Amino acid sequence: MDGDGHLDSISTPGRLAGPTEGISPEELALAARNHGLPLEALRYEVTPPGLHYVLVHYDIPSARAEDWRLSVGGLVRKPLTLGLADLRSFPAVTHRVTMECAGNGRAGLVPRPVSQPWLAEAVGTAEWTGVPLRLLLAEAGVEPEAVEAVFTGADHGVERGVEQDYRRSLTLDVAEGTDPEVLVAYAMNGAPLPPQHGCPLRLVVPGWYGMASVKWLREITLTATPFTGFQQTEAYRYRQEAEEPGEPVTRIAPRALMIPPGFPDFMSRTRVVRPGTVLLEGRAWSGRAPVVGVEVSTDDCRTWHDAVLTEGQGPAPHAWAWRGWQARWTATPGPHVLGVRTTDASGSTQPLAPRWNRGGFGSNHVQRISVLCTPETG
Amino acid sequence: MDGDGHLDSISTPGRLAGPTEGISPEELALAARNHGLPLEALRYEVTPPGLHYVLVHYDIPSARAEDWRLSVGGLVRKPLTLGLADLRSFPAVTHRVTMECAGNGRAGLVPRPVSQPWLAEAVGTAEWTGVPLRLLLAEAGVEPEAVEAVFTGADHGVERGVEQDYRRSLTLDVAEGTDPEVLVAYAMNGAPLPPQHGCPLRLVVPGWYGMASVKWLREITLTATPFTGFQQTEAYRYRQEAEEPGEPVTRIAPRALMIPPGFPDFMSRTRVVRPGTVLLEGRAWSGRAPVVGVEVSTDDCRTWHDAVLTEGQGPAPHAWAWRGWQARWTATPGPHVLGVRTTDASGSTQPLAPRWNRGGFGSNHVQRISVLCTPETG
Repeated sequence: MDGDGHLDSISTPGRLAGPTEGISPEELALAARNHGLPLEALRYEVTPPGLHYVLVHYDIPSARAEDWRLSVGGLVRKPLTLGLADLRSFPAVTHRVTMECAGNGRAGLVPRPVSQPWLAEAVGTAEWTGVPLRLLLAEAGVEPEAVEAVFTGADHGVERGVEQDYRRSLTLDVAEGTDPEVLVAYAMNGAPLPPQHGCPLRLVVPGWYGMASVKWLREITLTATPFTGFQQTEAYRYRQEAEEPGEPVTRIAPRALMIPPGFPDFMSRTRVVRPGTVLLEGRAWSGRAPVVGVEVSTDDCRTWHDAVLTEGQGPAPHAWAWRGWQARWTATPGPHVLGVRTTDASGSTQPLAPRWNRGGFGSNHVQRISVLCTPETG
Repeated sequence: MDGDGHLDSISTPGRLAGPTEGISPEELALAARNHGLPLEALRYEVTPPGLHYVLVHYDIPSARAEDWRLSVGGLVRKPLTLGLADLRSFPAVTHRVTMECAGNGRAGLVPRPVSQPWLAEAVGTAEWTGVPLRLLLAEAGVEPEAVEAVFTGADHGVERGVEQDYRRSLTLDVAEGTDPEVLVAYAMNGAPLPPQHGCPLRLVVPGWYGMASVKWLREITLTATPFTGFQQTEAYRYRQEAEEPGEPVTRIAPRALMIPPGFPDFMSRTRVVRPGTVLLEGRAWSGRAPVVGVEVSTDDCRTWHDAVLTEGQGPAPHAWAWRGWQARWTATPGPHVLGVRTTDASGSTQPLAPRWNRGGFGSNHVQRISVLCTPETG
């Protein structure tokens, strides 16, 4: 149905919001379906599955684990069709992975790209268990002329006029790599995948934005040419202009988030704290290099102070998961704006203002939290 | 801190959106935290916990089940302090309950009350297991002068200038009733409560909008006078004007929802189907009386046709849970608007247009779904 014109009335090109345009009904419909991590849930080193961010392009497919089949085909010597039991017969590997939506921060851009309107909360960390993709590829026997693996999910829909199954590719060096090690995962935090996280099977690409981790995975196809499908060459590109080819969205840029201290006002979400010492805590991550530092500001990003990186619970290190951080703040009565930023071992840090691009991807500008410190100690 | 004025800058009175005002940043912040049931998840008779709607007024509290204590006090002969193990020593009862946020449908009102901007998806059905509240009250021995039980949650915040723990009451006839039987629940779908659903303990009031089912329940207090706290007398009232006392929000009004047929466009969420027979399915519920009928319209609510009420799986009847329904539609090429409405045994049905009230509560107007049927059979 691609390009036959029937869908023009319901599936329009990407657009930017007008200068005074509030969140539109269609953005609200996405925000009501999908959800972020409530920021107080940063307290959990491993996110409970129902609090992990969720972004579903089309519908959550109906799936029965017992009937599910994953095919591995294309340029392979031995095409495979694998059920869940087959996959469980391979060595099981568990990785703790921080996953973030590439569109996180989009709603802070001016002008705002009209799409899922994330603020800062599209993140979560889970322990994913499954088969290393490289073992499946070795079992199938990748032909020498193959250059990419294309991953097809069971979710089906239309996007900017193009009817499609959700589909993304990885080059073979990434697909067969060990650092990060890509998983075909069948468990999240030790339990079967919930429907919204890909039940019964998904890809997990540590260190990459979430669009690479194809959910409801049903097909892996080895190809001799780079994949040019919608999600690879139309969506998920860093672009300034609609016409340019742009750069692909891949690894997660560094970001730190703070657990909002004190307690909130229901509507404004502004925080209230009492005078005195306040423990500021949160998480920091980067998909590009290890986090090496976190800085906190309590004066609306005018000055910065080092936070302490904490040791996590359980076996470490988790190369692809967030790090905890802590800092102390002496709150004095009045309004304050807190901020936090991280730097990774590549030297990459977070900008104060969003770096604009047309899709609203990779916007890792500093989180700011408005806090009112009351006069009394409560 | 109530009324001391320090909070005026961050916690403002309720307001209505202006005539051309899109969803505001503060409404978006709520929409990004809370989430509805993705409508395709109506396919599950019992909603997986991560897909059940979530509305949290303040923050999800940090809670450890092993340390949690529920106190039962006030006008009782024997005050109780109960841990989870104590509660499990009472007879356990499981009820399948459809829960809906009182603000569901709010974003469709004109003018729009500025609060959590629900469209139609703030619903879910779970199997809640716990102790009947009446057994706990009997154990504590309610004094004859008591008229209400007040329930206090551990979530703390500010709302329209009032600092508060989330707190609601029930009159004793409801609290001690058997139809519905109110539960102090410690399990959801057979597992411990997830953090966002009240871990480790919550009230479940079948048939009532969700505001009555206090989460993170830590205190039950029997009182000689009706409770006049914020959530009882300020919020959750049906009002036309801000000044009037209004009527309390209690039982769930009838509503039917349809699983959107076919597949969606990512951004507009408009559905695409092929010509021919399409099975329309969904759920219908009322907290006031049993659902007795469901009607479907395929011509934008001009004509209506009876749907079939289906029998559910598992033991029936579930007096407080939704019913399934089905109808067949012969789709012809072109745009269509589908609608569905239900009627309960009290004769109550759903209006075509929202019935406006200042808080945006109980807005059970008919769901409309835009569908494009393509010319080809696909």
